[in-house]
This record gives sequence, C-alpha cells and structure tokens, in this order.
Amino acid sequence: MKFNVSSRLTYYVQEDSTIILNVHALRTPTQTILEETLQIDPYIKTEEITSTGCESRLVRFKVNAGTNVKIEYKALIDNSYKHLDTNSLTEVAVEELPASVLTFLNPSRYCQSDKLYRFANNKFGSIEPAFNKVLAISDWIHDNVEYLSGSTNSQTSAYDTVTELAGVCRDFAHLGIALCRALSIPARYFTGYSYLLKPADFHACFEAYLGGEWVIFDATKLAPLNGLVKIATGRDAADTAIANLFGNVNCSWIEVGCELAEDVFNPVFYNSESTVAVSYI
Amino acid sequence: MKFNVSSRLTYYVQEDSTIILNVHALRTPTQTILEETLQIDPYIKTEEITSTGCESRLVRFKVNAGTNVKIEYKALIDNSYKHLDTNSLTEVAVEELPASVLTFLNPSRYCQSDKLYRFANNKFGSIEPAFNKVLAISDWIHDNVEYLSGSTNSQTSAYDTVTELAGVCRDFAHLGIALCRALSIPARYFTGYSYLLKPADFHACFEAYLGGEWVIFDATKLAPLNGLVKIATGRDAADTAIANLFGNVNCSWIEVGCELAEDVFNPVFYNSESTVAVSYI
Amino acid sequence: MKFNVSSRLTYYVQEDSTIILNVHALRTPTQTILEETLQIDPYIKTEEITSTGCESRLVRFKVNAGTNVKIEYKALIDNSYKHLDTNSLTEVAVEELPASVLTFLNPSRYCQSDKLYRFANNKFGSIEPAFNKVLAISDWIHDNVEYLSGSTNSQTSAYDTVTELAGVCRDFAHLGIALCRALSIPARYFTGYSYLLKPADFHACFEAYLGGEWVIFDATKLAPLNGLVKIATGRDAADTAIANLFGNVNCSWIEVGCELAEDVFNPVFYNSESTVAVSYI
Amino acid sequence: MKFNVSSRLTYYVQEDSTIILNVHALRTPTQTILEETLQIDPYIKTEEITSTGCESRLVRFKVNAGTNVKIEYKALIDNSYKHLDTNSLTEVAVEELPASVLTFLNPSRYCQSDKLYRFANNKFGSIEPAFNKVLAISDWIHDNVEYLSGSTNSQTSAYDTVTELAGVCRDFAHLGIALCRALSIPARYFTGYSYLLKPADFHACFEAYLGGEWVIFDATKLAPLNGLVKIATGRDAADTAIANLFGNVNCSWIEVGCELAEDVFNPVFYNSESTVAVSYI
Repeated sequence: MKFNVSSRLTYYVQEDSTIILNVHALRTPTQTILEETLQIDPYIKTEEITSTGCESRLVRFKVNAGTNVKIEYKALIDNSYKHLDTNSLTEVAVEELPASVLTFLNPSRYCQSDKLYRFANNKFGSIEPAFNKVLAISDWIHDNVEYLSGSTNSQTSAYDTVTELAGVCRDFAHLGIALCRALSIPARYFTGYSYLLKPADFHACFEAYLGGEWVIFDATKLAPLNGLVKIATGRDAADTAIANLFGNVNCSWIEVGCELAEDVFNPVFYNSESTVAVSYI
Repeated sequence: MKFNVSSRLTYYVQEDSTIILNVHALRTPTQTILEETLQIDPYIKTEEITSTGCESRLVRFKVNAGTNVKIEYKALIDNSYKHLDTNSLTEVAVEELPASVLTFLNPSRYCQSDKLYRFANNKFGSIEPAFNKVLAISDWIHDNVEYLSGSTNSQTSAYDTVTELAGVCRDFAHLGIALCRALSIPARYFTGYSYLLKPADFHACFEAYLGGEWVIFDATKLAPLNGLVKIATGRDAADTAIANLFGNVNCSWIEVGCELAEDVFNPVFYNSESTVAVSYI
Repeated sequence: MKFNVSSRLTYYVQEDSTIILNVHALRTPTQTILEETLQIDPYIKTEEITSTGCESRLVRFKVNAGTNVKIEYKALIDNSYKHLDTNSLTEVAVEELPASVLTFLNPSRYCQSDKLYRFANNKFGSIEPAFNKVLAISDWIHDNVEYLSGSTNSQTSAYDTVTELAGVCRDFAHLGIALCRALSIPARYFTGYSYLLKPADFHACFEAYLGGEWVIFDATKLAPLNGLVKIATGRDAADTAIANLFGNVNCSWIEVGCELAEDVFNPVFYNSESTVAVSYI
Repeated sequence: MKFNVSSRLTYYVQEDSTIILNVHALRTPTQTILEETLQIDPYIKTEEITSTGCESRLVRFKVNAGTNVKIEYKALIDNSYKHLDTNSLTEVAVEELPASVLTFLNPSRYCQSDKLYRFANNKFGSIEPAFNKVLAISDWIHDNVEYLSGSTNSQTSAYDTVTELAGVCRDFAHLGIALCRALSIPARYFTGYSYLLKPADFHACFEAYLGGEWVIFDATKLAPLNGLVKIATGRDAADTAIANLFGNVNCSWIEVGCELAEDVFNPVFYNSESTVAVSYI
C-alpha cells in the first residue's frame, strides 16, 4: 500500500534547546520510503541518529533562544505487511525466545507488568491459543476502558489505566503491553501514522510476539490494522516519544496526515473469527 | 586487580520452569575472566545468551518440575578501571551524546525521572561541574535515605524512595539514576560482585555519563568503588535481575563471595575533595 | 449470643511512649458487656476515652522506657443482632441520608473511592436492588482477591488491592468500602473479635448503609457473620487500628480469642439466595 | 473584623441529581453571621445539615434533570480571632490530647502521614518549640513547592506534592497537614473565604493543634492570616469540598468575593520573628 504521510509541528524555544524528533517513517524490509522531505523553518542543520534499544530514526538539532521553529515532514511510503494464519500464532516458550526479544518481557516505565500478574492470569491466563489470549486482552481493554481525550497525561501508566478505565491510544497500548508481559508474552509499543484515524493524529498500538512474529493489535479499534506506517517501536512511550525536548520548549501546533496514495484499500480489523493476523516488518 | 567471585543459589522448582540467570561476570576490555565455572546440580544443559538493550551474559535453562536445583558460579577475574580526572567529567550536551547513550535519559520502570524534574532541579540543578552535581546527588541519598534491609520489595521505585527515605542498595541506585536523568545526565544501573561489602551479597550501584565516560557512583558508601566486578548494566533492575524466573520457582538459598586474589588493595571512596573518579568498561 | 473474648499483647518500649489501645468491645444497644477486665503488667494507670468521628473505646496510657508491657483484655459479651429482610435493604437516596452517615461517602486514606468510579459503575452499577449490589461486590472480592498472609502491609490501600488482587481481611474490607462509596452507598470499616475464625485473630469486615441500617458484609467469608463482637467502626483502618503507638514501641506478641459461652450457634453466611441479612447495633 | 463574603456558582444538571453545598460561613463563638442570604435560581427548597466528623454547614438539595441552577450566597460576617503568644504554643503530648483531637493524628485520603515519617522527622523533627516546627514546615512548603494553577487535580495528594513540588492552595495545605501528623502534631484542613487573595477564590489553609489551640498556617503566603472567614474544617479536602455532586452535574461558573466591611485592616503574616500567632474557632 502507498501512503502519503505528513506531520507539521511548531515549537517556540525560549532558551537554547535541543530537540530530538521522532516522526520519520522507519525503513524496514517491508516499508520503503519512496520520497521524503524534512523542512525546518528557519533552516537548522540536523543529524539523523539511530537509537539503540528501540527502532526509530531520530533527528536531533539545536535551536537558539527566541526561535519559533516550524517543522514539516512529508513522505511517500510503500508499505506491505504479512498476512499470518492465526493458528500459527502460538506462544513461544521463554526458552525459545530470541535474545533480542527478551527485553520486551521486562516491566518498563509505563507498563508495570510486575504488578499485574494476578490480574492478567485470573482474567486471561487460561485462554488458548496465544493469539486469542492477546485478542481477549485487546477486546477487554476496548470494552472496559473509555476513550476520553484529556483524561490522562504523560505520567499515566498501565497501573493507573487498569483501574481508572479511561485514556487515549497511548494508554490503551500500555495496558495491552503490560498484560501480555505479565503472561510472559513479549510485547512492545508501536507508534506511527494511521490511515482513517479520526481525528487525524499520531497513533499508538502494540505488538505481541507470537509464533515468532511481531503481530499488531490495536485495543482502540479506531483505525484499520493495515493502514499503519511505522515510526518507531520500543518498550513503551518513554522510548518512542514523538519529540524529546531538552531546554525550555513549548509546542504550539501539531498536525498529522496520512492519505492513501493508490486506489483500493480493504480495511482489516480483527474479530473473534479472525483467521488472518497482521504483522509489519 | 584480581578477585575470586562466587555465587551459590538454590531453587526449588514446582512445575516445569525456565530460569534466566544473570550472575556471570561480564567480559569487557578492562575485565578479563581468567577462570570460570558454572555447575548446576543436577546437571542441566544451559545456553548463554547476550541480551540486547543492556550488557549482560545471561544463562538460560529449563528445569523440570520437582527439581531442587543448586547453582554454583565461580570465577577468577582480572579487573582494571580508569582513573579519571574529575575536572574532565563535565556534562555532555544532549546534542553531543552518542546514540547508544540516549536511551539512558528516558524514564524506566524503577526510575521515574519524569516525576522528579522539579525536585532534582531545585536541589541539584545549580551545582557545577557535573561530577560534583552527581556527587551531591549520591551524598544526598546517602545522608537522607536509611539503609534498612527488608524495608522495600521488588516493586519499590525511586518515586517511593525519594519520599519514604529507606531502602537497600537497589533503591539507592534507582534514586541516583532517576535524579541524574531528571537533570539530563544519562545514568544506568550497575550490578556486580563487591569486595569488602558486609554482609557479602550482590551489590547495585549506578553509572553516570560524564565527560564521555561511564563514571561509577555508590550512594550506599558500603564498599570501595574500585572493588567491583561487573555482572550487568541496564536501565534499572528490571533489565538486570540476578535471575528471571518463568514458572513456579522458589529461591531457598543465596550466597555470594568476592575475595581479593592478590596482596594489595587500596580502597577508593569519593569525598568532596576527590580529584580522581573511577570508571569501569 | 454470649462470647468470651480475649486479647493478649506484649510491647517492648524503648523510650517513653504513649499507647492508645483499641481492643475493648464496644457498648451498644445490642452488645452488652457482662464482665470485663484489662490487666497491664507492670501496672499502669490508664484512661478510657471515646473517640469522635468513629465508634471505639480507646484506652490511653504512658509507658516508661525499658518496659516490657503485657496487656490482657478479657470480656464476656452478650450480643444480639438484627435479622433484616434483604428486600427492605434498598439504596437510601443521598438526599435522605442522615447527616451522620454522609462522611462515609467520602474517600479516605485506604479507600480511594474517587479513583474507582468507572470500575465500580461498570461492574456493579446496574445490579439491583442495593443489597444484591453490595453482595456482588463482596463476592467479586472473594472470587478475585487471593487471601494471602504477608502479601500486604500497613500502607496497602484499596487502590492497590483492586489491581494486585492479594491481601488480608483488612484489604478485603477496604476494597469493599471503596467500591460501595464509589456507587454512593455509605460504607465503613468494622473491626472486632470473630468466632470460628481460623487462625484466631482480630478480624475486619465492612458495613454498608442499606435501607437505613448498617448491614455487615465479609468478603473473606472466613467466619460466620453472626459470630462477631464489635470493637470499633470507622472510615477505614486509619481510624480503628488495634493500637496506635507514639514513641519507640515494638509489638512482640499478639494472641486473640473468641469462644462461644453458650450451647448453640447457627452460623450465618450470605449466598445468592439470602433473604435475611445481619446488622449489629 | 467585618467582611462581606459571597459566592456564585452555576451548575448544569443533566440527570436528576443531588448537590451538597458547603459555602456557608460557619457559626462559631468568634465568627458571627450578621446577615446571610442563599438564593437558588430556579427556586429549590434546601435543607441545612450539620456534618459530623468535621465542622461545616452543609446545604442539600435535589435538582431535576435539564436544570441550569444558579446559586448565590452572600453574608456579612463579624469575625474575631485570638492573638496567641507563640511561646505558649508548645506541643501537647499525645497523652494530654482531647479525645476530639485524636482523629487529626490519623492519615487521611490526601494526607498520607504514614508514608512521611522519615521525611518529616529528618527535616523538622529536631526543631523546637512546636510553633517553630510547624512554621518551618510551612516555610519549607512555600520555598519548595511551586504555586501553579492547573498542575494538580482532585486526586493529587500530599504524597505526590512532596515529590512533584507543584500545586495549588489545597495541595499546600494537604502537605502541611501530612507533615504535622507524621510528627504527632494534630492538624486539619481549613477552607474559607480569604480577604486580599488574588485572584479571588475559595482558599485552603491548615490548622495545627499547639498549646491547646488550633493555630492557623498558610504555606502559600498568598493572603493575610487574619483575613479568613471559615467555611469548614475537616481531615482534608475529602471532608470539606465546596460541593459534593451526586449525579450528572457540571460546574460552569465559580465566582468568589471577600471584601472588608470596615475601615482598617492590618494584615498579619508570620515570619521567623513572629511572637504572635492567629487562631480562629
């Protein structure tokens, strides 16, 4: 699938500051960047860096005090994804997990899986096979957590959401991740552009490691699973913030776009009869 | 310096389980392993894996239900460390940080630096240069947090410790890390064997990234900074647990040793006049 | 019903301290104290005080440094309780609640009902009538929270228990109270002696205000509802601790007894067909 | 001192709801209400109730669905307060505290004194006499916590504020109360009208029980201590909310006034040389 993605951000910088931006589409075997531009007004020289510990293409630059900096990223993406037979998406035993995946079993800042063992096991522990277990987690979040803009903030974590039962896509993803890890299923945070998301915005989902594949889940059900363009994956939002700001910086504008650049799109959502799952990479 | 290190752990395994052990001394340019044995009784085939996202040598093995498994690790280590002039240990600007270090600015499970900005900046923000800033953090923890065995558990985080003011080495390290990150100084968790620690046990400290080096700090002041043998570094204890247990496993015995294997040892501690700092790697 | 109740507590007092003891059976219209002795060895003059804001008979005394103080309370209680038709136990509208009951709608230290509105309403909001609603809360706690000695401490609150799903009678009661208040049903903490509780100990339950009566519920289901001797009621355990210790005091012994002092006892537990509920007072 | 106080609140009621309003000035031996009106538009019959467990004059009324209800309270108050010699404001030993005061030693929803023992004792434990101890607490809060509108919400408690170091008058009061109780000094929440507060609003302070008197402290230092008109005292904001809303009610307007109704006013603030303290009642 081809998508035109874009993001426009404006920051006012009060003192000399450094911004690490994380809005570029990832380059992966299945995600090709056909065209891409980053414009910063006024012009600032940037450095692209590849983070370790998560997948992302960071852009770092310094901004002088008193600058109103306008950032525009545009890209044309050619994206594909795997269709996976859900019957093959069984749990991978801990002794078979690749070393690179083990880190996604650990609790992280916003996904305190260590506090959710009983809850996860009581509610989902006996559901088999593993794909259905994660689907049940995703459905439970969808059915029990209210999507409510402004109900949470940057400190809200899965431990809050599991009780307070309100949040946005970020919170839905964190809770999904925490519950998977509490059941010894590796899970990670996915942030990206999302076709048909209303209102348009950056989106957050989660990936669970099933049958040797990173399978995408979206507990918000707000957008099709096959309309995503990956920006980053990481342990949680602490790894994958759209921007890390060092200094005195205020964001005054965010505008995000994701449009189809071809004719046909057949939206994919999971339901209880799903036999095909979606995996990027 | 040469050290004989050892650890003996006994686990009773009630159902088929997987253990990922993290007691091996790291191999680094300055830490050579002269001899090393791992014995598991009854014999179990193990696999050594190298984790990503943190530095450690993990050993993974499966244990059958009903087994009482005794693990003994012994090694002879030849260890050196850098003496660094504290004047050179200035803060590295965010725009100069290597990509691999950036992840150690993010909040993590036990180090919620995002909640400590005001606290860290009010108390330590104006102390310069950076080495003295981190030393002030370490000293403040030492002077304000009571070392009290049993006062905390595996869920205790820096956010608890900064207020409750009691904990063990793990908690001291987490708080040091969180305060550094809140000040935009990369910091990570260090776990290892520790010469002259009383009572003998695994030890936890933290490293701050200053002047391009990972400099060791120990807010407990319970053992000399130059008597450490590194097992692992990571974002916090979630990355670097001595053992991760998957299944129904109970630990019934832990015994740790670290003895000098040569004649002379001049213990190093920092104080307010320190002009030389210690860095492993 | 007649019960012989007793408690023996030993404290070692390291510096001059004040103890406020809360082990006396309450005097209420339905709870008569036939005999009662309090012995403190060595002899210390005590003062009985009646707290405000909760119902309890507190005994206050000062202990000199270096004293090992043994306290023995024994009483013969004649206790009755109301049998209430569950059909009459409907919700009392907020505008009809007596002023003295309103305080039991507010969140308190261990019962953060303000954080549980969505959870309580989603799960229990539509169950009618009110007795069944509270019964459903009590049953949900019983079915989902594991009774596990030592899993919690004096700082554990309903907000923890609702997610971590382990605790002791105190935690079960706090969660029941918090969920009732989140549904605008007044609820309070009940602590007392409990016949047939195994192992013998002080017990904690909760009372919900239904149909104009304080109806007793015990989410642990560990003891019959008609075998209780009330020590105190209050907003939560912060109001009704068995002892408040001011100074440096360590408890070294607690022993509690509650024996039937007549021939016949027909234990009462609720179940889904219960048509009769129990109310003390 | 004479003050004209007023409050105007507008609520939109979506479903039949009950409001318990808490804006009336208290009647106390030193606070006389010379004139008072409460107007509700459209007219609704109200009931005045006196809460137990805290001091307040609550007004309760039911509002039908679809009503936009405008409330206006106006009163002319004649207020006096005690001038107390700070030398007399010593700590009252626990064994001498009146029974009615004991409850203000307990932790409460927003004042988790049980978590702050070490912090309070380390920082303030050795300051004598007691008035200076509480003054040091109040000054520490003022100097370390940033007054920042919108930084906190109705769930924020002293345990958050002591670390996050930002809040509004309510948070300042909660932290002051929690620290006093952690030091065995009874403390309670005070809400009222406040002359010279800018911008005009309801205000919150705290009272500490010293030398047998409830002495007023205001860690915000935003208004003179002798310009207060008491609405309520209680354990914390859970007891003393300006309005408790049962049903679906949204507040769309709050306006508060407090004007001097005589010619001369000499504002009183404490400083380190204060020899006179202020007590209402």
